[in-house]
Amino acid sequence: MATWLELPENTGFGLDNLPYGVFSRGGGPKRVGVAIGDGVLDLFAAAEQAGEAFANLLGDGTLNPLLAAGRPVWRQVRAWVTEWLTDPAHRELVGSHLVPLDGVQLHLPFEVADYVDFYSSEHHAINAGQIFRGADDELMPNWKHLPIGYHGRAGTVVVSGTEVTRPSGQRKPRNETVPTFGPSRSLDIEAEVGFVVGVPSEQGKPVGTDAFADHVFGVCLVNDWSARDIQAWEYQPLGPFLGKSFATSISPWIVPLDALEHARVASPPQDPEPLPYLRHDENWGLDLAMEVRLNGHLVSSPPFATQYWTAAQQLAHLTVNGASLRTGDLYASGTVSGPERDQRGSFLELGWGGREPFDLPDGTQRTFLLDGDEVSISATAPGPGGSRIGFGEVRGRVLPAC
Amino acid sequence: MATWLELPENTGFGLDNLPYGVFSRGGGPKRVGVAIGDGVLDLFAAAEQAGEAFANLLGDGTLNPLLAAGRPVWRQVRAWVTEWLTDPAHRELVGSHLVPLDGVQLHLPFEVADYVDFYSSEHHAINAGQIFRGADDELMPNWKHLPIGYHGRAGTVVVSGTEVTRPSGQRKPRNETVPTFGPSRSLDIEAEVGFVVGVPSEQGKPVGTDAFADHVFGVCLVNDWSARDIQAWEYQPLGPFLGKSFATSISPWIVPLDALEHARVASPPQDPEPLPYLRHDENWGLDLAMEVRLNGHLVSSPPFATQYWTAAQQLAHLTVNGASLRTGDLYASGTVSGPERDQRGSFLELGWGGREPFDLPDGTQRTFLLDGDEVSISATAPGPGGSRIGFGEVRGRVLPAC
Repeated sequence: MATWLELPENTGFGLDNLPYGVFSRGGGPKRVGVAIGDGVLDLFAAAEQAGEAFANLLGDGTLNPLLAAGRPVWRQVRAWVTEWLTDPAHRELVGSHLVPLDGVQLHLPFEVADYVDFYSSEHHAINAGQIFRGADDELMPNWKHLPIGYHGRAGTVVVSGTEVTRPSGQRKPRNETVPTFGPSRSLDIEAEVGFVVGVPSEQGKPVGTDAFADHVFGVCLVNDWSARDIQAWEYQPLGPFLGKSFATSISPWIVPLDALEHARVASPPQDPEPLPYLRHDENWGLDLAMEVRLNGHLVSSPPFATQYWTAAQQLAHLTVNGASLRTGDLYASGTVSGPERDQRGSFLELGWGGREPFDLPDGTQRTFLLDGDEVSISATAPGPGGSRIGFGEVRGRVLPAC
Repeated sequence: MATWLELPENTGFGLDNLPYGVFSRGGGPKRVGVAIGDGVLDLFAAAEQAGEAFANLLGDGTLNPLLAAGRPVWRQVRAWVTEWLTDPAHRELVGSHLVPLDGVQLHLPFEVADYVDFYSSEHHAINAGQIFRGADDELMPNWKHLPIGYHGRAGTVVVSGTEVTRPSGQRKPRNETVPTFGPSRSLDIEAEVGFVVGVPSEQGKPVGTDAFADHVFGVCLVNDWSARDIQAWEYQPLGPFLGKSFATSISPWIVPLDALEHARVASPPQDPEPLPYLRHDENWGLDLAMEVRLNGHLVSSPPFATQYWTAAQQLAHLTVNGASLRTGDLYASGTVSGPERDQRGSFLELGWGGREPFDLPDGTQRTFLLDGDEVSISATAPGPGGSRIGFGEVRGRVLPAC
């Protein structure tokens, strides 16, 4: 199938992607849209004009009602949009509701219910263990038995482009005896992939790995901003809190799971074999090629296919105790780091805990983020016929502490 | 002032309390109500009939719009209800919208935004440290410098009376080498006090201790159900996750902060002196007398006034990194334990990690909860003129694992 639309060459937003987002123009109302090429289709307006019943899922300016509608509806809507974009008979309908991407404002695409962050990259966990605890204690004893995770702050999840104020808080370097208060001296990023839950589940009823695609609607990019000094002082024994809760940025486009069929790969072998509730026969590794840029300069290319625990395993773990899912739940992979130095998804690892500053083309060095720095995380995945499925980017600039 | 209503003797729901909740009758719509004696006033219906503008804050069957309205409105509504209940001219208005408490169903009173759980009882932290890590390592080095906390799962906060299914998960006793999967063998409670945020704050703008009463609407009771074996295996290094996320129960009535003026006491002396952002001149200790019952038998009486960190300090800490507040945010005190054995707010402490079973009047013993056990946590606080402000109870029964 080909679209009658003219698309930019090598666009990540081709006919095989069709990611969903929420946009507005000139201060107008928020609208659910689908990105195509360098445009966005006002899906609500188009569906209303076409008299499609699914328009009633789109009128709230948030993806949540569509997310809640479930997989058969997700596929139906996707089929409709595909038909509109391939059958020239719909040229007028689409044309009247297609607006240039560079003229719209993009918003948080869904209301986040609960936000969970995992820690599922073996390379990241080993790096963090070496940096924080020394080489003898690389992985915690539980790490290969379960996908470690924790709850983050849903209320501070923001859309790409939102500026991030450097957090202040308590930090106590090892060579000092009492904590002091002030702006974080080790503000960091975590390059992650996020999974957006559509269909809720009932409290007391675990969701198995085989039900992953019935519950998860799609995928976005996540920057889990982290203040390492605040985190290091506060995290014993209940885990990260203020070191993370000031902001988490997500990309504005949610790529449907249905667009990622060609990106599915086997995840790395797991040894020891996980307990039965964590096993799956299907491949749920995802071959996303991620790129992290600092002030426009590529600093890292984390390969998401190297993740030890898959998103299907994470979902099964998250619910195995009977915890229910809600529409809009977001869970993230944890920092994605590959085996190579230029594949590390955090500055903590790139600068090895501040001990190995790295060079930028402007002649400066970094260990952690400076005020004014802008970080962008992008990704693409294989699509059909050699095409690439683009995730757009999650971008944010650091403002000085208040 | 006295009410023209006949109230039961020693009611905790007297004229000085007026807690808010959400109820329904016979499958009808959810209504915002105020508990008075053994009745509940349908506040929405009464306000509508009286032509009061604040009726428009009450029509959604949840407290959230009232919570968001802010302190001047909270006080105005409280003043109106007080007038209705003291001036016999309103006897007919009130009488037609007052229904017996025992004929209504109580619901989750507000939509929970983010849920944070603190760890602010020194006695509990010392007990837990001794049980888990041995007597030499009583308190973590950070504990007296900041109120330790973490995010819990907002989506599994349930109202009192909801049955709680025993969670299954991974647990690895110390004497075993690999984890096994199955129902938790050490299901526990945590008797806590919860604080409900009404007025939101802006991302990047900390909320000082002096703004506590402008943001926090009221107080409820919390049972933070905990599976100690699941928690012990999973919690390193990112804190509790599935050991807590299956369920958190709250009492149905939110006691307004304005009802607790007579309960305010000085909190215990803090040494070392906290950093400036954690200091307050006002007393925000609260003299709540809590009671924990197992199958109707009193097993513990935790004194909330012994808490080391106050709710005002917790709020200041929670936001000092710029994390924003949303209407409906809930944060809980952490397990409340006093210095005495019969003041401990968890079975972990009451049975000293399973090593010291305690007796029940039916001749059985407990360390942790058995299937079918019912736990109830209640509390009262001093009101004016020797009256008691009642919090009602948070109650839940344990169902066997699925």
